[in-house]
Amino acid sequence: MQWPHKDLLDISQLSPEEIRHVFEVAARFDEVNTRSVKKVPVLKGKSVVLFFAEPSTRTKMSFDVAGKRLSADTFSLAKSGSSLQKGESLKDTALTLQAMHPDCIVIRHTSSGAARFLAERLSCSVINAGDGWHAHPTQALLDGFSLHRKWPAGFTGKTVLILGDVAHSRVARSDILMLTMLGARVRLCGPRTLLPAGVGTWPVEVFSDVKKACRDVDAVICLRLQLERQEAGLLPDLREYAMTYGLNETHLDQASPDVLIMHPGPMNRGVEIASGLADAGNSLVLDQVSSGVAVRMALLYLHAGRSRELTLQE
Amino acid sequence: MQWPHKDLLDISQLSPEEIRHVFEVAARFDEVNTRSVKKVPVLKGKSVVLFFAEPSTRTKMSFDVAGKRLSADTFSLAKSGSSLQKGESLKDTALTLQAMHPDCIVIRHTSSGAARFLAERLSCSVINAGDGWHAHPTQALLDGFSLHRKWPAGFTGKTVLILGDVAHSRVARSDILMLTMLGARVRLCGPRTLLPAGVGTWPVEVFSDVKKACRDVDAVICLRLQLERQEAGLLPDLREYAMTYGLNETHLDQASPDVLIMHPGPMNRGVEIASGLADAGNSLVLDQVSSGVAVRMALLYLHAGRSRELTLQE
Amino acid sequence: MQWPHKDLLDISQLSPEEIRHVFEVAARFDEVNTRSVKKVPVLKGKSVVLFFAEPSTRTKMSFDVAGKRLSADTFSLAKSGSSLQKGESLKDTALTLQAMHPDCIVIRHTSSGAARFLAERLSCSVINAGDGWHAHPTQALLDGFSLHRKWPAGFTGKTVLILGDVAHSRVARSDILMLTMLGARVRLCGPRTLLPAGVGTWPVEVFSDVKKACRDVDAVICLRLQLERQEAGLLPDLREYAMTYGLNETHLDQASPDVLIMHPGPMNRGVEIASGLADAGNSLVLDQVSSGVAVRMALLYLHAGRSRELTLQE
Repeated sequence: MQWPHKDLLDISQLSPEEIRHVFEVAARFDEVNTRSVKKVPVLKGKSVVLFFAEPSTRTKMSFDVAGKRLSADTFSLAKSGSSLQKGESLKDTALTLQAMHPDCIVIRHTSSGAARFLAERLSCSVINAGDGWHAHPTQALLDGFSLHRKWPAGFTGKTVLILGDVAHSRVARSDILMLTMLGARVRLCGPRTLLPAGVGTWPVEVFSDVKKACRDVDAVICLRLQLERQEAGLLPDLREYAMTYGLNETHLDQASPDVLIMHPGPMNRGVEIASGLADAGNSLVLDQVSSGVAVRMALLYLHAGRSRELTLQE
Repeated sequence: MQWPHKDLLDISQLSPEEIRHVFEVAARFDEVNTRSVKKVPVLKGKSVVLFFAEPSTRTKMSFDVAGKRLSADTFSLAKSGSSLQKGESLKDTALTLQAMHPDCIVIRHTSSGAARFLAERLSCSVINAGDGWHAHPTQALLDGFSLHRKWPAGFTGKTVLILGDVAHSRVARSDILMLTMLGARVRLCGPRTLLPAGVGTWPVEVFSDVKKACRDVDAVICLRLQLERQEAGLLPDLREYAMTYGLNETHLDQASPDVLIMHPGPMNRGVEIASGLADAGNSLVLDQVSSGVAVRMALLYLHAGRSRELTLQE
Repeated sequence: MQWPHKDLLDISQLSPEEIRHVFEVAARFDEVNTRSVKKVPVLKGKSVVLFFAEPSTRTKMSFDVAGKRLSADTFSLAKSGSSLQKGESLKDTALTLQAMHPDCIVIRHTSSGAARFLAERLSCSVINAGDGWHAHPTQALLDGFSLHRKWPAGFTGKTVLILGDVAHSRVARSDILMLTMLGARVRLCGPRTLLPAGVGTWPVEVFSDVKKACRDVDAVICLRLQLERQEAGLLPDLREYAMTYGLNETHLDQASPDVLIMHPGPMNRGVEIASGLADAGNSLVLDQVSSGVAVRMALLYLHAGRSRELTLQE
């Protein structure tokens, strides 16, 4: 497949075929990651800028690992060290970066739309690594890739519950788009204050009772609870939240026997997920991290190496 | 040309021929930066330390990009993460760095003379990436390279205005040396409080009126205004400064029709430069960024790879 | 020698033969560091994570240089940028890192035992780059390598004094293990408040008078004084400490004529060591830094490249 996109901004821009193509390429790179020599020359001589204006460890490191395993040069730019702090506009920072001839800019930003803003102004590829509450397409694709490997027959007929603070979650938004596009049914569950205002119009079923929400589900994606939500008055009490909405064994009594447990990390064990479930045999939490590297290798290859052959030899 | 210098500390150490040699080498690397594979093995196995004791994004990233495109290994050291914070002297930090056998140390420091201090004590190459108000030779050389590409016939007969806070600007000091050495005439303009005390002895014409200063000029270099100057009482009012000394279209009425607009970045749009001018067709602002990578590739090659052949094949 | 250890946690796990093997491998890499092309393909395609949860410059940079000179990809993770700050446990951070398939994790942590904690839970190699007051085996091995090159006949019959704040020093603990294992006699000297409680049971001689402690010694390792010890009431007065326990020329009157001076850095000149001694001909301070790179290259090779041939050609 000739990849038709300059940028990856949101899942909504992709077709189901394109999502499956990402999975296929990711599967090939996932194999590279288990080799003794975990490096292929696919992006040799390419420059990838990791522009993280919002703190992140795992996403940034995942992209860094992905880039270097493809032999790209990676360059990290944090907001704290950047000219944004000296009052430079995002546009000027972006144009400055572009003038150094990168092949791809990976951006995380607190403002929804920041990635699109850049993509419209730059000729190089832009990959959205999370913008505000809006979208986190690479997280959705890695969630999808983890599920895809467990569900070789596809997503049709599968039901996935997204549990927790949906309102403030770009992961939830992107996961919903990806899951429904691939044919899965999506349920949401969380306290009313942490569900988005317009959720009634979304292609999802909404539950307030976790146990009912878990009935017959094939996977549960627990969302991270930003603990500062409590201070904002959206949560009455953390302990009460954990007891009611933290996923535990009892909730899963009537779930599918093969139900998969997911969490984008970092986890607050005992808050949004019982510690035992995070470590259970059907937990995909660490598989998601491995998938993240493979999916980001695929995405960097598809976007930064558009003219390149896919060579998996040293 | 056999490059005769171990270090690059200031423009004053270079001859006009050497400056032009830097431009020639930079032009070859500039071409590399437009390739699909932006990497040459010129500095393979060389170690370049980026020691930035004063925050910087674009200069540090420019050197990092330059080093990696030449296949050097780069190592970043910030003051905040360094032993300087634990009370170690600059000399001991430098000797410690040297003991790791780097080929080149790029240093930015708040103290004028810091680069020279290191160069005199270390056997490896030292490149001054800005020391206090003293010198910023790589910025001057990239400014020169941007102009050189626009002025193939040379700098003789050209007039360049440097506008703004000359007193606190290492960019201005290095630009003046470079421009006069290549045969250009230099004008300075800024409020009296932001002109250096001894400016009367400099080889420049001094203006207080921007419009007059712009008459017949071939290029204007706007300097960044450190906004903290106002707090220091050197500026009566930012808005008044912007109205009087911020470059705008009207000022350029009687400039050369091909007048070029430059700024070392990051820009305070609407303060030292009108936003429209920054984006105008005759603005070199982004060209300066691209030139920066090419010039720093040339400088790293000339200093860290003194014994190497210049090979531009992979 | 087939290296039998997955991890390097403490000197106590090594045999004298293994320590000498580290020195032999380090000697070969030390030669690489003096080449024009300081890079060998020994760890090509290997990923080394530098996880420094406690600030450090020289140790982290030393590992970074070591890794890159072996052609490994290195990834830096600081506590400030890590999920530990978002409340993630050390175990979850470690499992997350492991899921990205690194070959080796180098960890520095404020908690004694942190490296062992990781090593027991991860299948990749873990190298302890300093954990609390417990151990700093790579520092001990580089100290040993520096001495080994000066003492080709071995450590037997040699006497080494460790001077200063032994109580809070992981360097001292690891050095004592390494030195006694190789056959040297070890003396300790410092104010009573800065000697460990159980020092009576250690295989060392304890002195309170520096001059007596230096009599006939072949090497003195000065420890860094954490200046915050004074605030904690462990030191009456810094000036008095420096006069009594700071190593100076007079103390060495009756030392071996070839006495070697060492310090792990960064030094407080004039506090724990007289400035002249740090720069004297018999000072190994900078040699220790060079040795550090060579020893860490050896350790990364032995742990991350266990299945690899040692090739020292490009």
